[in-house]
Amino acid sequence: MLEIERIKRQILRYLAGKKATFWELINYQDSHIVNFLQAIKDLLNSGQIIYEKPYFYTATTLPENRIYQSPGCLYCHPFEQSSFWKKVLTEFEKLTIDRPLPTSDFDQGFIRPVDTLKRVAFIYERGDLEETEIFILGDDDLLSIAMAITGFPKKIVVVEIDQRLTDFILKKCREIGFDRIHIYQYNVLDPIPEELKGKFDVFVTDPVETKKGLKLFVSRCISTLKGPGSAGYMGFTHREASLQKWHDFQRFLIESGFVLTDILRDFTTYPEKENSWEDFYRTYRIMKEFDLDLPDMDWYKSCFVRMEVVNGPILLEVEVPKDLEELYFDEEAWATPLPSFLEKKH
Amino acid sequence: MLEIERIKRQILRYLAGKKATFWELINYQDSHIVNFLQAIKDLLNSGQIIYEKPYFYTATTLPENRIYQSPGCLYCHPFEQSSFWKKVLTEFEKLTIDRPLPTSDFDQGFIRPVDTLKRVAFIYERGDLEETEIFILGDDDLLSIAMAITGFPKKIVVVEIDQRLTDFILKKCREIGFDRIHIYQYNVLDPIPEELKGKFDVFVTDPVETKKGLKLFVSRCISTLKGPGSAGYMGFTHREASLQKWHDFQRFLIESGFVLTDILRDFTTYPEKENSWEDFYRTYRIMKEFDLDLPDMDWYKSCFVRMEVVNGPILLEVEVPKDLEELYFDEEAWATPLPSFLEKKH
Repeated sequence: MLEIERIKRQILRYLAGKKATFWELINYQDSHIVNFLQAIKDLLNSGQIIYEKPYFYTATTLPENRIYQSPGCLYCHPFEQSSFWKKVLTEFEKLTIDRPLPTSDFDQGFIRPVDTLKRVAFIYERGDLEETEIFILGDDDLLSIAMAITGFPKKIVVVEIDQRLTDFILKKCREIGFDRIHIYQYNVLDPIPEELKGKFDVFVTDPVETKKGLKLFVSRCISTLKGPGSAGYMGFTHREASLQKWHDFQRFLIESGFVLTDILRDFTTYPEKENSWEDFYRTYRIMKEFDLDLPDMDWYKSCFVRMEVVNGPILLEVEVPKDLEELYFDEEAWATPLPSFLEKKH
Repeated sequence: MLEIERIKRQILRYLAGKKATFWELINYQDSHIVNFLQAIKDLLNSGQIIYEKPYFYTATTLPENRIYQSPGCLYCHPFEQSSFWKKVLTEFEKLTIDRPLPTSDFDQGFIRPVDTLKRVAFIYERGDLEETEIFILGDDDLLSIAMAITGFPKKIVVVEIDQRLTDFILKKCREIGFDRIHIYQYNVLDPIPEELKGKFDVFVTDPVETKKGLKLFVSRCISTLKGPGSAGYMGFTHREASLQKWHDFQRFLIESGFVLTDILRDFTTYPEKENSWEDFYRTYRIMKEFDLDLPDMDWYKSCFVRMEVVNGPILLEVEVPKDLEELYFDEEAWATPLPSFLEKKH
């Protein structure tokens, strides 16, 4: 069972660093008592851990990179207390300094590097990063590179429409010698490649937020998951998605067999300066509705949502938008740039 | 519209402290751009705020207690930077020092005082505390007293089964001169008093987590809400509720017309020492399944969940447990004490 495997990873990495009592250990894993007990018993039975009342410890000394690395408080001072995570952040910032800038043709915009790493660390905290097979749909945040730097995932597959990004990610992963990554140039309007279906423990995506686009992105992702215990992560905003849209989308997730386990409000910020998208603003609907200057601060934020498969997942039918215009725009998209190929039309 | 009112409160309290640009202001409210613009326009039209490009400010100087009080990071160092919140916490700790201790007869156990205040502060952050009518079902955490100390709510109604608690809350609120509170001695197995239905902006509850009990608690709460824009808050654990139960419950919420807006993992901790429930452990199922000593640290935590009405709310039929045993126990209740009236039976 994937859920139990995840809990076992959380237990083992904690014990890799120090012995612990039952009550201490229960604090460093996510599960219900029944599954936690199952994970403990599995680890005892397989001889990986030993119980000498009141302590559990690992049967053999585990390598240092197996020891749990706390990222600290992800809300206000991430990574400050951790040399491991600080090193990952520094390397990520260095590696991505020459990243491709957003183009309005693909509704791009990236979150701050520290926020990309916060997402990675949150995924790590949940036990969803180490030894897992991860599917990423759309990666202008360069999450795959941050994950690759940690060295934890068993495999990463990125599907992304923009060739500048697929080239960049591949080049950078080669530079750091991470070869467990596969990259597809892929348009979400197309069917997902057959060989990717049902193969992954985890997906991550930052979907467009139109009603149709949202479900299409996530539906593509859902089709890649293995089954119960697989998890999905996504960015989702209040800025451009109403609560009515959130509600409709949550119903879709519940019916697809997911439970929502975490909703972290405004967890990530889109930096104005680094995205260099001043020019996009003239096409934003919001600028036309109010007499506004360009932003004097970062204001576009998104929530980070985690979901986990409890049944299925069940692949519901979703409507595929007929073109990129319908993919990128609906009546709630007030801060989405008009792609150059649509500018003449409007 | 209640949702717009909430956003207006968030905007006004921020401007009570300082003028702000559109982009600064959007960072201190929760809404979609469209509703945010609506709130801004309403406030401009009613003359409460003025726009002199690029700043918004209040038309008249608002009293100091209207100014936004940031509680700081609620995850790792709450209240440290705020004299307002520090004062509330100190007073809350002082007022509740002689609180009634948990009894197994009502499956009680309270969270740390600082966590009670974290809940209050999170509710405040969302704009759900000031000038609102709040319904609390079950209050061994003494949330009502913490809310009363802030002075913000328009009205608080507590319904609670334990007369020691109803007496205590009333006495303490009188002590601090907060008279906008009404208290009912109430058993959740009984119908909710008619006069409480459809009257509240916000509910807060920390339900029992049996499948039937959970829905019963929340269903009682739902019936007290006014309509779209009303919000519900609840504690919910992973310790005693499986993801399957979470999933089933989330489906219930979605179908009741709610959207889930926040799920804060392990936001609150139940302190072992203060609860003095050592004696309860001998009856916990978990102690019978594994050879365990009593806890050497706090380990029982709960998530804090916020939901908001988008449709209705729709009152679904729920099954009422036939007695307190069925209310408190199901196959997932592994750390729930056996009430004294059941001890002989088992």
